[in-house]
Amino acid sequence: MSTRPTEQEFIRDEFDSVLRGRFFYAPSFDIYGGVSGLYDYGPALCSLQANVVDAWKKHFILEEDMLEVDCTALTPAEVLKTSGHVDKFSDWMCKDPQTGEIFRADHLVEEVLEARLKGDKEARGIAHLSLEEENEDKKKRKKKVKEIKAIKLEDHVVTEIEEILAKIDNYGGKELGEIIEKYQITNPATNGKLEPPCEFNLMFETQIGPSGNLKGYLRPETAQGHFLNFNKLLDCNNSRMPFASASIGKSFRNEISPRAGLLRVREFLMAEIEHYVDPDNKKHHRFDEVADVVITALPKNVQEQGSTQTQQISIGEAVKIGMIENETLGYFIGRIALFMKRIGINEKRMRFRQHMGNEMAHYASDCWDCELHTSYGWIECVGCADRSAYDLSVHSARTGEKLVVRENLETPVTVEAWEVDIDKKKFGPKFRKDAGKVTKFLESKTQCELESLSKELANGEIVATIDGAEFHIDNSLVKIAKVKRTEHIREYTPNVIEPSFGVGRCLYALLEHSFWTRPEDTGRKVLSFLPTIAPTKVLVVPLSSNSQFVPLTKSLTRQLRSAGISAKVDDSSATIGRRYARNDEMGTPFGLTIDFQTISDNTITLRDRDSTLQKRGAIPDVIQSLLAMTNGATWEEATTKLANFESQEIEQ
Amino acid sequence: MSTRPTEQEFIRDEFDSVLRGRFFYAPSFDIYGGVSGLYDYGPALCSLQANVVDAWKKHFILEEDMLEVDCTALTPAEVLKTSGHVDKFSDWMCKDPQTGEIFRADHLVEEVLEARLKGDKEARGIAHLSLEEENEDKKKRKKKVKEIKAIKLEDHVVTEIEEILAKIDNYGGKELGEIIEKYQITNPATNGKLEPPCEFNLMFETQIGPSGNLKGYLRPETAQGHFLNFNKLLDCNNSRMPFASASIGKSFRNEISPRAGLLRVREFLMAEIEHYVDPDNKKHHRFDEVADVVITALPKNVQEQGSTQTQQISIGEAVKIGMIENETLGYFIGRIALFMKRIGINEKRMRFRQHMGNEMAHYASDCWDCELHTSYGWIECVGCADRSAYDLSVHSARTGEKLVVRENLETPVTVEAWEVDIDKKKFGPKFRKDAGKVTKFLESKTQCELESLSKELANGEIVATIDGAEFHIDNSLVKIAKVKRTEHIREYTPNVIEPSFGVGRCLYALLEHSFWTRPEDTGRKVLSFLPTIAPTKVLVVPLSSNSQFVPLTKSLTRQLRSAGISAKVDDSSATIGRRYARNDEMGTPFGLTIDFQTISDNTITLRDRDSTLQKRGAIPDVIQSLLAMTNGATWEEATTKLANFESQEIEQ
Repeated sequence: MSTRPTEQEFIRDEFDSVLRGRFFYAPSFDIYGGVSGLYDYGPALCSLQANVVDAWKKHFILEEDMLEVDCTALTPAEVLKTSGHVDKFSDWMCKDPQTGEIFRADHLVEEVLEARLKGDKEARGIAHLSLEEENEDKKKRKKKVKEIKAIKLEDHVVTEIEEILAKIDNYGGKELGEIIEKYQITNPATNGKLEPPCEFNLMFETQIGPSGNLKGYLRPETAQGHFLNFNKLLDCNNSRMPFASASIGKSFRNEISPRAGLLRVREFLMAEIEHYVDPDNKKHHRFDEVADVVITALPKNVQEQGSTQTQQISIGEAVKIGMIENETLGYFIGRIALFMKRIGINEKRMRFRQHMGNEMAHYASDCWDCELHTSYGWIECVGCADRSAYDLSVHSARTGEKLVVRENLETPVTVEAWEVDIDKKKFGPKFRKDAGKVTKFLESKTQCELESLSKELANGEIVATIDGAEFHIDNSLVKIAKVKRTEHIREYTPNVIEPSFGVGRCLYALLEHSFWTRPEDTGRKVLSFLPTIAPTKVLVVPLSSNSQFVPLTKSLTRQLRSAGISAKVDDSSATIGRRYARNDEMGTPFGLTIDFQTISDNTITLRDRDSTLQKRGAIPDVIQSLLAMTNGATWEEATTKLANFESQEIEQ
Repeated sequence: MSTRPTEQEFIRDEFDSVLRGRFFYAPSFDIYGGVSGLYDYGPALCSLQANVVDAWKKHFILEEDMLEVDCTALTPAEVLKTSGHVDKFSDWMCKDPQTGEIFRADHLVEEVLEARLKGDKEARGIAHLSLEEENEDKKKRKKKVKEIKAIKLEDHVVTEIEEILAKIDNYGGKELGEIIEKYQITNPATNGKLEPPCEFNLMFETQIGPSGNLKGYLRPETAQGHFLNFNKLLDCNNSRMPFASASIGKSFRNEISPRAGLLRVREFLMAEIEHYVDPDNKKHHRFDEVADVVITALPKNVQEQGSTQTQQISIGEAVKIGMIENETLGYFIGRIALFMKRIGINEKRMRFRQHMGNEMAHYASDCWDCELHTSYGWIECVGCADRSAYDLSVHSARTGEKLVVRENLETPVTVEAWEVDIDKKKFGPKFRKDAGKVTKFLESKTQCELESLSKELANGEIVATIDGAEFHIDNSLVKIAKVKRTEHIREYTPNVIEPSFGVGRCLYALLEHSFWTRPEDTGRKVLSFLPTIAPTKVLVVPLSSNSQFVPLTKSLTRQLRSAGISAKVDDSSATIGRRYARNDEMGTPFGLTIDFQTISDNTITLRDRDSTLQKRGAIPDVIQSLLAMTNGATWEEATTKLANFESQEIEQ
């Protein structure tokens, strides 16, 4: 029973002052001036995080018997070179050579162009906020653009800019450089000209061991650890497919200039699933369970036309019409939507946005982001990517270790294929030190290439150019022929569907979605966490510091603890009303008041945070009600045995 | 009911082959050849870890309302410079200039001297193992010393070496260098002479942000994050003392040459508590609860005499006689002992060893290690240190931020103290740019120093030498006088008692302590985890792949899940006996067999892993028994309602 007003204005300063005042979080190394992009979680947010992670484990790992792994963050460079991260895991940055300041190119373009559009609206008299307010707001939000000027743009420029903003995630360094040039985007503080965008790798580098010979990085995702253990995981699953591995752990990204509070951080908790699936069969046996889940979708073709118009569509329909590529991808998108609902995310502020072509990570063949709406705009909180066979293939090729599934075929198949048969006895003496190279040349050929090589061979010899040198291979050295073979085993590299959660971002969105102000008293803030997720379930409040209440308070908290209900006591001298107000800011859903009547008849008052309604009953009955509500029952369902109780909340 | 034979020989190869075969763990980046000191946890160890961490949270955080924090691993250099880690957190290493090999000096000395003692025993005819076996063993354990030679040593040399080994943790680089010189310790593989020991800092270094201006380290402990948030934590606790913060997270140490498997790793999970206490009152209000806990203690004076003789002593007695310095330190040592028992550590293989003077970390004033015995010897698994006011003081001094407790005094006290009164109006013009320096010089003086300065001033002037320059200060510029003042508030820097758990080491010891071989069949290995801690509680085994069992299996696992009992199904075609044998290696305490009788009367067989006893009953009764046992009840207590069941376990 929530009394959250639907259209209340969200004021980030007030929100932030509750979160920091109650030590949900704080900038790390605060007394040293802090480091941007690093934050510490205090007790309440630790507990919220533990409950959300616990819900995640139940919803995903336990529900589907996923195999959990816990791999190291320290990763040797070679692994991340193979996975493509050393070369491609980077953002574009622009340096101001005058001041030495460094900007993330896409964010700067976005911010400057958005500011110009706002200035244009103001000039046309259709701005929402007054410029003064807006400029004030910019300063508080630590935006680079500190002032918006009311300058009217030409109509076609407005259209161009709107298109650029819709496609901003689709641009590489070259395009960003062109936009910066064309729209004369400069350092907003000094108007200084910027250097063209250059790539900055987002991984933290370090040295492993004392010799300085082993370069390493902190992992930017947990995924690689799963992939490298694929054979062991498959073995754990008795070689059965499909199956999934899961991991919850910290990852690290050296963001260029993080300025969005808890949303853009350099060290963060990820919860990642790698679901391994037969590339020829991406059906999912539990797809039915999510087919009717309706999501808000923003597919790529809409964005590529420069629009952000969403549509409501069921998972079943989206897969049917090909908007979502396959059942397994659809299944996980549906499961993500259900999870978000389970932890208390406002569904109206959730959408699934498909990546555009250029935007996709280097390993992905399709990707949908679960975006949650916050005061910073729409934020990617979960990525759901089809990584195809990319990772398993590249690691296998690099190490020579097969990362494949072998399936017994019920009916053996006859396969016809071109095969190379090298006469090794002659090959060595003929090519000497290059024998290996020439062998590799022949063995790495595709079927089509082998077919044409067989023709060259029939016509006399193959002339191979390898590393600039020429080699002559005739049919005394090698045979290339089409061979028929009966195969009893099918061997394939699985595809990987990856739902990847940024836990901290989900938590932040949850905090914003849960925050409101009591309309009757704007000084009173509330965080309406669901009872299943709330950091603490119950606040125990003895009416006064009277010593008669001490044993009652102890006995009550002991009973709550043994029922598994986490409780805190506030026996400070503040009024009941003030203690409850403090408690509302912590998001504790229930309050229990011990008063003089409790001493005589063992009854207590139960208070609901959102409605401030109160009911009274015997302690065991109240504990039963609490148990039901912390397991998901509503106030109405759980409190039928309790009597209504009227009392005014005294504020001071 | 365990049938673990008490004196069974532990064979590490067999143990390791079960752990790796069942993917409890694997070397990280295995298919790339691995990186020493980095390991991944597979599903079973992840689950064991989660259960142990959960037990830890209940035993410490929940039980005592500790305040949890989650701080970043990335730490700017300045913080760790202040804490002393940049200068002092290092080990001594020796390089072989010929081969480039690097050895950890203390470990090398220990290993070489231990090998010489063994060789001496063999020469005297009192060796336990034959040298061949021992040498074989060294190779397997990846020891640096590959061969032990039967060479008799002089009696006084044996005594000297025994003393050195007892005090090995007490030596610095200079002493290690002298020992290496005196006993001619060389590279065991090549006999090459080593360079003298030099210090190697154990922290991983990196750069934060794109500019390269902010050097950072990965934290070597979680503690600093707690300390920097002290004021916020105190505020969360309504300014009440004493209280504790707690944190569970990864820390990183760049070990020189880790060779002890899961025991010496470069990235590891820590669970740390920082308990803040009044330095004038280190009593603990729950000390009574642990006073009777008996521990095996090895105090520092015994070790300093070159002995490792332990004694059994109660916590109460140890504090009373001053062996343990104060109640709070004693309380936590007792709580640690109780926790170890709770998770299934063999108490006979647990001791508390006090650090010797030189061995202590730079921040500690007293420290006791909880050591667990493993096949690698006695291993430090938990440190319990009194960090005094060290950390809070140094961070406060560096940042100018007070990290103190302020207490209202019930009766105000009169304090008499020397005070400096600087005439700032004159000070500036007189000393100009050095005014700040001179002010700091005066304000940083102790009471004694102020007293003597006051005399100098009375005699004419103070002549201060600061940074090589001389400054003359007379009594027109400054007054120094003894002042009486009434104080209503007491301000103090708390002391910190820190129990710090290496979770991975506790897990490894638990694995070794739980491992045994069925005496009747040496091929059958068992991991006897307590039901409360075991990764999976129940294995469900349908008798055969008969399709009649499928719905029963599904319904049973659903019932188990809704009762909160984690279960796995093994419906492979192996015999029941073989499936149970597999299961014993996973440490699953209970098995449920579904057979044809189940179809007709809804009864199932319940099997106990350790005793292989079986009982039979109706499904709801069996689930009740399981619930009781996973909450701590014994087999005898929990299965009274079930009937005995005789069946031979068929092995093949």
